[in-house]
Amino acid sequence: MSSSPNKLNVHALIWQDQQLAVLDQRQLPEQVHYDFFTTAAEVAEAIKTMRVRGAPAIGIAAAYAVALSVQQHYSPQNTEWQKQVNADITLLAASRPTAVNLFWALSVMQETLLLIEHSPVDEMINKALEIHQQDIAANKKMGELGADILADAQGLLTHCNAGALATGGYGTALGVIRSAQQRQVREIFAGETRPWLQGARLTVWELAEDNIPVTLIADSAAAMLMKSGKIDWIIVGADRIAANGDVANKIGTYSLAVLARHHGQST
Amino acid sequence: MSSSPNKLNVHALIWQDQQLAVLDQRQLPEQVHYDFFTTAAEVAEAIKTMRVRGAPAIGIAAAYAVALSVQQHYSPQNTEWQKQVNADITLLAASRPTAVNLFWALSVMQETLLLIEHSPVDEMINKALEIHQQDIAANKKMGELGADILADAQGLLTHCNAGALATGGYGTALGVIRSAQQRQVREIFAGETRPWLQGARLTVWELAEDNIPVTLIADSAAAMLMKSGKIDWIIVGADRIAANGDVANKIGTYSLAVLARHHGQST
Repeated sequence: MSSSPNKLNVHALIWQDQQLAVLDQRQLPEQVHYDFFTTAAEVAEAIKTMRVRGAPAIGIAAAYAVALSVQQHYSPQNTEWQKQVNADITLLAASRPTAVNLFWALSVMQETLLLIEHSPVDEMINKALEIHQQDIAANKKMGELGADILADAQGLLTHCNAGALATGGYGTALGVIRSAQQRQVREIFAGETRPWLQGARLTVWELAEDNIPVTLIADSAAAMLMKSGKIDWIIVGADRIAANGDVANKIGTYSLAVLARHHGQST
Repeated sequence: MSSSPNKLNVHALIWQDQQLAVLDQRQLPEQVHYDFFTTAAEVAEAIKTMRVRGAPAIGIAAAYAVALSVQQHYSPQNTEWQKQVNADITLLAASRPTAVNLFWALSVMQETLLLIEHSPVDEMINKALEIHQQDIAANKKMGELGADILADAQGLLTHCNAGALATGGYGTALGVIRSAQQRQVREIFAGETRPWLQGARLTVWELAEDNIPVTLIADSAAAMLMKSGKIDWIIVGADRIAANGDVANKIGTYSLAVLARHHGQST
């Protein structure tokens, strides 16, 4: 373990030996268990059954799944391989119909495939790795920019898990908290996030892996902490932000926003 | 079971065969288990270990416990019996130092004892039964008066358990909801009440026992329900209300009050 802000200790997805290793998030924090997948169908099933979760992580998993599909079906002798890859892409698209990142990643991989003329396996794997690395780089950039905005904040609250586990690594909302914690932040609170306890099971585990101290609270305790002045900012992820500014996210996010407005905190 | 508003199907405390039967609320809703106590020390232990909970119910249990103590120690031959009863009262007073009803009930029983000249056992039992019956009667009266105020409400939310289980019977906050449900109320919501789940384990069970439909929600979902117009009133118990109007209650109550103010609901 390390408390370095740039070292990533928590990985939801690892490409290794031509396979995709997927951390089974349903078993956290009791078990750290990876499944190793070699086919797109297995990855689709992992998305459907919540082994992998979080919009960015789902998109990255799907990109690797398309690469796995090409790796499985492509050969110069197989004239049907493109049809088989397209069938896998259809399967992946059905695995989480609400995840916009999923469709984005599938279309990037599909376009990449159309531009490749000869042996596509390595190029498709490299494209998936690139999507993964770009997500981590974007998260780190977002973390630093977010931490700039939080320049005076000493107490932060987050809800659900928008961390390394939900992304390629580092995290979106939790990435901002990671970066801010390297600066002036003194105390981090995480709501349990009922009913599935992503905060209690995932966020607290993930921060502990990186030696970042965090206090777990019942979701209903947030208002009292705001009133007591312990929380300066509330930083949450969003499943999706619409062009008009509407936000869709986990139950409890709206509650925190109303409570923050009442108490003068920022969100 | 019965849906009659005046029949009580749920009993935290039952005086029976010169014993106090105490429903073990820690085992609800899986098990409906009563412990039968014949000594004050057992009742003090039951209060300390949360077998019995809720300020009114704790007070009533303590009143029965003093009656049990007199029943155990009094005899014309025992010149020490009053000292033994006083020792039991001291023990009971230490069982839940924050419960004001406990001290009130102990002092009522102590004063009653001082006024009795001859054989005190039956009179002390009758006094405890009277305290219990008065609590039920007060709850029913409060329920009807509360329901009058809720004349137009169709959707109600409660938090924690201020019901039959927490009182002599019928309930305080939940008593108001019971009475209102016999009138115009269409939908009742109960928050889980993290971290101990009194709403999920106790309120939902208690209402089900009385055939009153209720929807269980994650505490953090209350704000969204308020926004959607599903909740007209929020009715919660209070551990204590101070003379200046300050209220002490379960975590999450303050959060609901702030959210209700924002959405224009009544509390």
